[in-house]
Amino acid sequence: MNLSTIVAGAMHMARWNLTTAERLVWIEDCLALGITSFDHADIYGNYAVQNLFGEALRLKPALRQQMQLVGKCGIALHSSQRPEHTLKHYNTSAQHIRNSVEASLQSLGTDRLDLLLIHRPDPLMDADEVARCIEALQHEGKVLDFGVSNHTVQQFELLDSRIPLATNQIELSTLHTDALLDGTLDQAQRLRRRPMVWSPLAGGRLFSDMGEQASRTRAALQAVADEHGVNLATAAYAWVLRHPSHPHLVTGTGRRAGLQEAVTATQLHLSVQQWTRVWRASMGHDVP
Amino acid sequence: MNLSTIVAGAMHMARWNLTTAERLVWIEDCLALGITSFDHADIYGNYAVQNLFGEALRLKPALRQQMQLVGKCGIALHSSQRPEHTLKHYNTSAQHIRNSVEASLQSLGTDRLDLLLIHRPDPLMDADEVARCIEALQHEGKVLDFGVSNHTVQQFELLDSRIPLATNQIELSTLHTDALLDGTLDQAQRLRRRPMVWSPLAGGRLFSDMGEQASRTRAALQAVADEHGVNLATAAYAWVLRHPSHPHLVTGTGRRAGLQEAVTATQLHLSVQQWTRVWRASMGHDVP
Amino acid sequence: MNLSTIVAGAMHMARWNLTTAERLVWIEDCLALGITSFDHADIYGNYAVQNLFGEALRLKPALRQQMQLVGKCGIALHSSQRPEHTLKHYNTSAQHIRNSVEASLQSLGTDRLDLLLIHRPDPLMDADEVARCIEALQHEGKVLDFGVSNHTVQQFELLDSRIPLATNQIELSTLHTDALLDGTLDQAQRLRRRPMVWSPLAGGRLFSDMGEQASRTRAALQAVADEHGVNLATAAYAWVLRHPSHPHLVTGTGRRAGLQEAVTATQLHLSVQQWTRVWRASMGHDVP
Repeated sequence: MNLSTIVAGAMHMARWNLTTAERLVWIEDCLALGITSFDHADIYGNYAVQNLFGEALRLKPALRQQMQLVGKCGIALHSSQRPEHTLKHYNTSAQHIRNSVEASLQSLGTDRLDLLLIHRPDPLMDADEVARCIEALQHEGKVLDFGVSNHTVQQFELLDSRIPLATNQIELSTLHTDALLDGTLDQAQRLRRRPMVWSPLAGGRLFSDMGEQASRTRAALQAVADEHGVNLATAAYAWVLRHPSHPHLVTGTGRRAGLQEAVTATQLHLSVQQWTRVWRASMGHDVP
Repeated sequence: MNLSTIVAGAMHMARWNLTTAERLVWIEDCLALGITSFDHADIYGNYAVQNLFGEALRLKPALRQQMQLVGKCGIALHSSQRPEHTLKHYNTSAQHIRNSVEASLQSLGTDRLDLLLIHRPDPLMDADEVARCIEALQHEGKVLDFGVSNHTVQQFELLDSRIPLATNQIELSTLHTDALLDGTLDQAQRLRRRPMVWSPLAGGRLFSDMGEQASRTRAALQAVADEHGVNLATAAYAWVLRHPSHPHLVTGTGRRAGLQEAVTATQLHLSVQQWTRVWRASMGHDVP
Repeated sequence: MNLSTIVAGAMHMARWNLTTAERLVWIEDCLALGITSFDHADIYGNYAVQNLFGEALRLKPALRQQMQLVGKCGIALHSSQRPEHTLKHYNTSAQHIRNSVEASLQSLGTDRLDLLLIHRPDPLMDADEVARCIEALQHEGKVLDFGVSNHTVQQFELLDSRIPLATNQIELSTLHTDALLDGTLDQAQRLRRRPMVWSPLAGGRLFSDMGEQASRTRAALQAVADEHGVNLATAAYAWVLRHPSHPHLVTGTGRRAGLQEAVTATQLHLSVQQWTRVWRASMGHDVP
């Protein structure tokens, strides 16, 4: 797995209301900033985002060689785009995975996903069936690396016992710190699988949430940001990047300035005490 | 471990108020339906069930060769049958295990248990002592396979590090779904140890409980049952059997029709969406 | 790791208000009772205890050969002794560990720690950095064995994957029983790493807490104590020592009689039912 530390998340691309040419500009902005990896999922934008991205990429197909594409499958939305779905559910059958990958390749206008992730843990997952399916896709060159997202330690151990997992893409931010202590990041460090982190800004709550925890955390983080002469978002990204598991960080921004905020964080090193001040603010009490 | 997918649980046999001849009919009904495995524990029926079963088996001893007997030990009841017990407690000392096995063999009228389980995790269990005791019992031919019941992932790992465990018999039903996500079933699938499931009908609550969760779940399950033209119990069994760990299912019924409902479920395959509709009803919300 | 079963905890030494000569008497009392291991941490007594102990040891340096010294590092207190600390935090950087060990050796007046523990799990711990640092300290003869304290199963697995851990020093008492069921002690027994137990008397709450849980537990424990003709503290120690992981027990007492109460417990064997009566009282209900 050879992703850039900052990964451009395309999840919200449909909301950005960009023309195809503008989407190409965004892609080129990312690449110019050293953000060479793009995070997708079949379901993003109600199954529309991969196509929007692919339309832009088709304007300049040679860019494909400069980027890595991350895909996800395993969630089936209750959606007008999928009338056969009677409710939101998970599906990790070989047929669903293969269909999803083939459709993603077509939408994105590429012959391969650099990384494919199972989007959510599926209680009905047959690990042997998944492994056989992924091995076939890898053999065909359609999927290079394979991993999971939002998996617990035991869920990761199960699938990793059948096929090597490159990563676990998990939620981590100053407002959502469970992964620090629930074993997920200990496992990632132990197995030397760099995690990917989604919602490093807590889905924007870091800026907008007026609750006690968010207010405390924002104040602590702003103080750290001021000490480094950066803004709140950059400090929040740097807080996540400080983790010794060397996480990749998935941003969700369509703004060039937003991408730059994340890239700036890769050069920022919070001291242990700065990091702890933010963690304490988030917890609401001193460390034990 | 070579059990039938449906296992006949004898736990409630004392309540069935059957004559010895009628108990033999029940055993023969099971065998005729392909239910060749019988689930026991030393404590069932206040230490009486194994004897009731053994009395029936003695009427036709040749049946022993067509069946597998599962025993359990490790719980010590506060009971008039055991005046030396001052309170309910666990005991996994070698002496207690051996005494329990010897008594079970005598009560059941057999020379061996096909499978012996530690009934509940015992914080005072010395894993080396248990392993030595079981190895001796296996060497003597009195116990063939060995396993546990109601053990967490770490409890299973501990004992399995000393002596191979064939299974973990756990609770799972549409109303009790913890094992789907707490790692127990992930571990079972990873280690390829088919679990056994007790209370697949939630101890009857699925039919009688008028609470919100049970009502929602019953309605969702009834709809699935109707789609397949089966009854509620069969749909509930099929929901459990759908798990990729290939669980054995322990019924608790004394009725021939009840046994048939379970056997019917082995031929039923719920779709992913049917399964998820029931899970969602049990959780009270969509999957994340 | 070759510690005495009872370990003398020096945590509260600064509060004992002893002269240097009196502290030496305490040390000699411990040794005379067979308590040859002493538990320290850099932070005890607001960074003062190791020095108090070292002053006494310097009166009779030859005693060093008869004892084992346990040190801990990794917590950085908010303290007038450490003006550079702006808040309580964890620090497991190589520099912090080395500085702490060098200072401990100097304060204690010794050339080696028989055992060094990471005091609390540090989310920012780089396991490779810790391992390299400890290996260097071991190579220099400054640290013999290495372990952790208060680590979860996954935290232990991480560091143990880089450098062998001799022990996990955890909290366990009749009033704080989490470790019985959360996997910590299962892991200790599985890996055959004798745990160390702190606060075996629940920090004195066992005697003073008038809440329901403590009152119930005290009554149950007193009955067991009476049956053996020992006092409450000895029964509480024996309850912990009954665990099959063979825990070392860290006392916190400065009284010779208190040390004797712990030593007496090593000769006491609670029956399974006695142990369970106390556990039941602590839980407030029968075992499942």
